[in-house]
Parts: sequence; C-alpha cells; structure tokens
Amino acid sequence: MSWEDKIRKVEPYVAGEQPKEKNIIKLNTNECPYPPAPGVEEAVRQLAGDSSALRLYPDMDATPLVNALAAQYKVDPDQIFVGVGSDDVLALCFLTFFSAGSREQPLLFPDITYSFYDVWANLYRIPFRQVPLREDFSINPDDYLPAVTGQENCGIIFPNPNAPTGLELPQADVEKIIAGNPDSIVIVDEAYVDFGARTALPLLEKYDNLLVVQTFSKSRAMAGARVGFAIGSKKLIGYLKDVKFSFNSYTMNLPSIRIGTASARDAAWFEETTEKIIKTRERFKEDLRALGFVFPDSKSNFVFAKHPDFSGAHLQAALRARKIIVRRFNKPFICDYLRITIGTDEQMEKVVEALREILGK
Amino acid sequence: MSWEDKIRKVEPYVAGEQPKEKNIIKLNTNECPYPPAPGVEEAVRQLAGDSSALRLYPDMDATPLVNALAAQYKVDPDQIFVGVGSDDVLALCFLTFFSAGSREQPLLFPDITYSFYDVWANLYRIPFRQVPLREDFSINPDDYLPAVTGQENCGIIFPNPNAPTGLELPQADVEKIIAGNPDSIVIVDEAYVDFGARTALPLLEKYDNLLVVQTFSKSRAMAGARVGFAIGSKKLIGYLKDVKFSFNSYTMNLPSIRIGTASARDAAWFEETTEKIIKTRERFKEDLRALGFVFPDSKSNFVFAKHPDFSGAHLQAALRARKIIVRRFNKPFICDYLRITIGTDEQMEKVVEALREILGK
Repeated sequence: MSWEDKIRKVEPYVAGEQPKEKNIIKLNTNECPYPPAPGVEEAVRQLAGDSSALRLYPDMDATPLVNALAAQYKVDPDQIFVGVGSDDVLALCFLTFFSAGSREQPLLFPDITYSFYDVWANLYRIPFRQVPLREDFSINPDDYLPAVTGQENCGIIFPNPNAPTGLELPQADVEKIIAGNPDSIVIVDEAYVDFGARTALPLLEKYDNLLVVQTFSKSRAMAGARVGFAIGSKKLIGYLKDVKFSFNSYTMNLPSIRIGTASARDAAWFEETTEKIIKTRERFKEDLRALGFVFPDSKSNFVFAKHPDFSGAHLQAALRARKIIVRRFNKPFICDYLRITIGTDEQMEKVVEALREILGK
Repeated sequence: MSWEDKIRKVEPYVAGEQPKEKNIIKLNTNECPYPPAPGVEEAVRQLAGDSSALRLYPDMDATPLVNALAAQYKVDPDQIFVGVGSDDVLALCFLTFFSAGSREQPLLFPDITYSFYDVWANLYRIPFRQVPLREDFSINPDDYLPAVTGQENCGIIFPNPNAPTGLELPQADVEKIIAGNPDSIVIVDEAYVDFGARTALPLLEKYDNLLVVQTFSKSRAMAGARVGFAIGSKKLIGYLKDVKFSFNSYTMNLPSIRIGTASARDAAWFEETTEKIIKTRERFKEDLRALGFVFPDSKSNFVFAKHPDFSGAHLQAALRARKIIVRRFNKPFICDYLRITIGTDEQMEKVVEALREILGK
C-alpha cells in the first residue's frame, strides 16, 4: 500500500473566475463595487506606523472587533464569535453543532442553496437531507418541522436571502422553523441580508437555538480581509469558542482585527453604501424585466435571472465576449440562470446595453 | 433529546498568557523580540493607499507570496502551499494525508511534542500512537521504522527541533525515518528550524513522501500576520490544495499576502535577525549553566530548562512576580521545566538577574 492509497482525494472546487485582464466588468462573485469605509484606510495607515505589533500573536478573542460588532448590533460581546470569513465560521458551526449527533438524524438544508453546505457535511461525516424548494424557488417551512414531517433532524441551515436565488424567506416563516425545532440548532446564514431583507437577530431574544451568521465580504466591501461572524446566545457562542480554541487558537490576524473594527464602527457608510446598491438593483430589475428576463425577487446584491428564449450558457458566453463576467451554475433546474452581481449604476447600464445587443432588441 | 445533547463539547485550550500590563518581559510564546523586515512596514503603507483592493476576494493561490518563497527556497512554486499560520497548514495536512487511512495503522509522533498533534488526530478521528522519547528527550529513529517495530503506520510527524525541548534530530536520523517509510507521508514540522538547525528541505530531491512545514511566526517576527507554509513534491502539494480548495477557498487575506511577500523577499534581514537571536541564546545558555540549570541543547528560539533544587512552578511564579512571563507545561516528565523564549540581550540579562535573585546566588 503506497502513501497515495492512504490519503484523502477530492474533486477540487472551481471558484468564480478572478480575471487578470483589465477593463473587465466583474459581476461574478458578489463583491461590493465601492471601496470599504474610510476608517479602513486610516486603520491600515496606523498599522504601518505600528508594524512591530505584527511580531506578537494576535488577540485570539479579537476583542476590539467583537466589541464594535456588539455595539453595532446591540448584543453582549459574549454573544459574538468572529472568524476568517463566514465560510470559516460556518464550517466551524458544522463541526461544533452538527457533527456529534445521531446518524439517524440528518442535517436539513435546501436542495438549491449555498454550494458549501454539502461539502462541509461530507467533510465532518454529517448525514444530511437536501430539502427541495418549491417550484418558485421558495422555502416551505413545513418541510423543516418534525411535527409535520415526522422526521427528527440534527440541525437546520439555510441562507436568508437564499443563494443563489436571492429570495427572502419572510420573518414569520423563519420563526416557524426555529420555534418548530426547539431541540435543534437552526443557523440562518445572512451573508446577503444587508440589501433589504429582514435579519433574524431580533428572534435571539426568544430562541436560544438560533445562530445568525453574517460576513464583511459583501455589504462591508471587505472580501479581501476575510472577516465573518456569528451572533447567538452566550451558551451557543461559548460552545463554538471552546471547539475553535481547542484546535486552532490564532486564525484572525492583526490587520483583520484592526480594519474590521474600523468598518464595524462606521454605521453611516454602511447604510449609505447598501442603500446605493439596493437602488441600483431595483433599477436593474426593471431593465431586465423590460428585456423579457424572469427572476425571483432578489433581496441580495445580485439578481438570479433567465431569459425564456436563450440558454444561460449562450448568454454567459456572449456577455464574457463583451468583457462582462457573470456566474452560472451548471446544475439541474438552474443551469439557464445567470447570477449577476449588482455593481455601480454605470456598470449595470453597460450590462443592460450588452444584453440588449445580445437579445437583438 | 435537547440541542445541547447533540453538539460537540470539548476541553477548551489554555493558551500562553497574553498580558495587558505594561513593562512585562514576555518570553512565553516564542515570539521574535525584533520588528519584522522593513519591507513589511512599506507593504502596509502601500496597502493604505490601495485599500479599495480589499473589496475583492484575495488571490486564493496567494501567488506573489508563493513565488517569493519559491525564489527564497529554490523550489518550484508548485511545491509550495501557504496557510493561515502553520497550525492551519498542519491541521489541513492531518485531514489530507492521515484521515483516510486504515484504522489499524496509527499516526506516529513523539510523546513529548507540540501539543496540537493529538488534538488534530482526535478532531479527524485519526488513530495515533505517541512514541516515547529517550530519557535525554531525543527521538530514536528506529522507533518509527516498520522494518524494526513490525508495525505499519498511516503517517509520521515530528517537529525538528522538537517542541518544547528545542532538541534537534540530526539530518541522518531524519533521513532514516523518511527512507524507512516509503509508503507513508512524513511531515517534518520546522517551526523552529531557522535558529541554527538543519532543514530537511534538501531531502526533497530524494523523497516524494516528505513534507516540510515552516512558519512566519517565529523567525520572521510575524505571528500577528498568521502565515505558514509547506514545501513538498508537486504531487503532495497538489493533493493538499485540492482538499483545501474543496471546502474553503479563501482564507489567507490580502494584507497577509502582501506583507508575507515583503518579508519573504528580505533574505538579509532574515539572516541578520536569526543570527542575533542565536547569539543571545548561546550567551543565555552559558548564564543558565552557571546558575546550575540543566537543559537539552536547544537549536530553537527558546531554552527548555530546569533547576535541580527548585520546582518549575516555584521558578515560574517567582519570575512572574518580577514581571517576567515564561511557559511551563503541567505534564509528566516535563512539569519542572521552564520554556523560556529568547528575547533581546537586555531582556535575557534581566531574566538572569532575576533568576540569580530567586536562587539566592
């Protein structure tokens, strides 16, 4: 038996294209088209004057960042956990909350959703069931209720708004799922919540089995910093920290702590920027509709749209030829949809112009 | 069954103290006493002028950093994998190389060694055997050879120099272990190699089952940046990347890529700084010896020492009372040893002075 027979082999993940060409309109990975809050630049400048601080291990509790988020979201610092992007936070949640349960109780999540959930479930050998969405891409909360389905679960996770559809699950339905599963942890992955959807955070006052996960990558324009966080009851956050610190104490680096803190403190920039993106998105929806596209009513910083007369592959290639990059998932039910990130007004006008040309309108 | 019965619970790790008091001599976590290479400050300054770059996801291959390391270590860029500190790299190695083997073949590592190996083995359900060191804390290579022990293994890992002893395993013995295990991956964890020990890197030309892991946290004075790396055959590195990208594509952030690159390019600073620390260490050893301490001959940036007449607990507390923090592990065989990081000459003189006072000499 050679060493090659003993090791783990996987299908490598293919991420959205990160082009090196110039003059590309890059609308494929849901990044923010605007620079981060001005305090971020200032924090980087201060770090330059204090770069010898880098010789020390970072504060493993990321205290200033946690405190800034606690102030921003009006919760106790003990209710916050931060990690290296929300992928890091979510993977750790899978390990902590879902990997120690019974093999008979699967983790539940939608069949069309964020593509890493089944990856992490497989990684930690968590049994899971992918619950079909309705035809209109909406989540049916009843499908997640043991009282309705007769099937217990080891936990539930879904994004709200869902990815890659952008569709919001109404607060009442979110609460129905949480209330109907008092013996399971329910994670609401709110990566895209800041663009007009309602957060589940107020439900934390009523439910100790709820965990809300958010990210700095989209609405805070800091995908390059890798900062994500979870908010939940002190008990849940405590368990998460215990597992995290038991096997890797130092992951968030000093630059991320400093610039994350600066960003979290700037509520005005945050509101202004997300509102700008929402306005651009609504205008873009009108233009898409006029061109004959159909799409779920996105509450995120992207629109997930298809055209009845053209394949997704054709449209994607035709846009790429015009230096516009959008995302498409070659999967059942959704392969004809394009996921188009909301950029600046100017960028979206160029997209509409290009589509007009491609559709011959 | 409540949600609390379903989740993973662990003993939280207790890290070395990170004091908030002023005027502390902090010699407990093997940090570098000098600031990072001057290019690091410059790279941070440039990032301040270019902070809108933070809105994009970072280059998931960390190309400039990988290229700078490849040039520095004279290997192909495809032979390098970078991660968020060497803990991140090592944990991923455990997952990739050791977690898919047979339950009958344990992972082998020393019984006195880096404290995270058994944690990661437990995390990924890897069977392991902790091989006793010799009385003098040295590794006996024969204990790792299936031809000698009659026991197959799923892999081998050891630090060189070993932690927390600081003792170097001679190159011939390292090679004996690698050559005697052609069907297993052998990881040499070289976190402390840059302070006078010999690296296993030249052995890469002869063995495709060798992986060398190093870090920016000690010899490059960048514990706060969280940068570690592995060097191995293209094949091994390829498997590591496949697993990494399959479940978390973006972990190293833009600041780390930029400042890591700047550091990796400065060979002169690196040599000068490590030589300074080696000189201070050798002087400190003489002083310790004169005070009656015994210790393995450290080739790292710390000394692991005990005094025949005083308990480790007493010495540690007495130093702490004098605002000097050192590390001690409350474990069999080593509980009377202090692990003292090498600081500046001035700091080490103060330690010697304090010890003289404590010992009444």
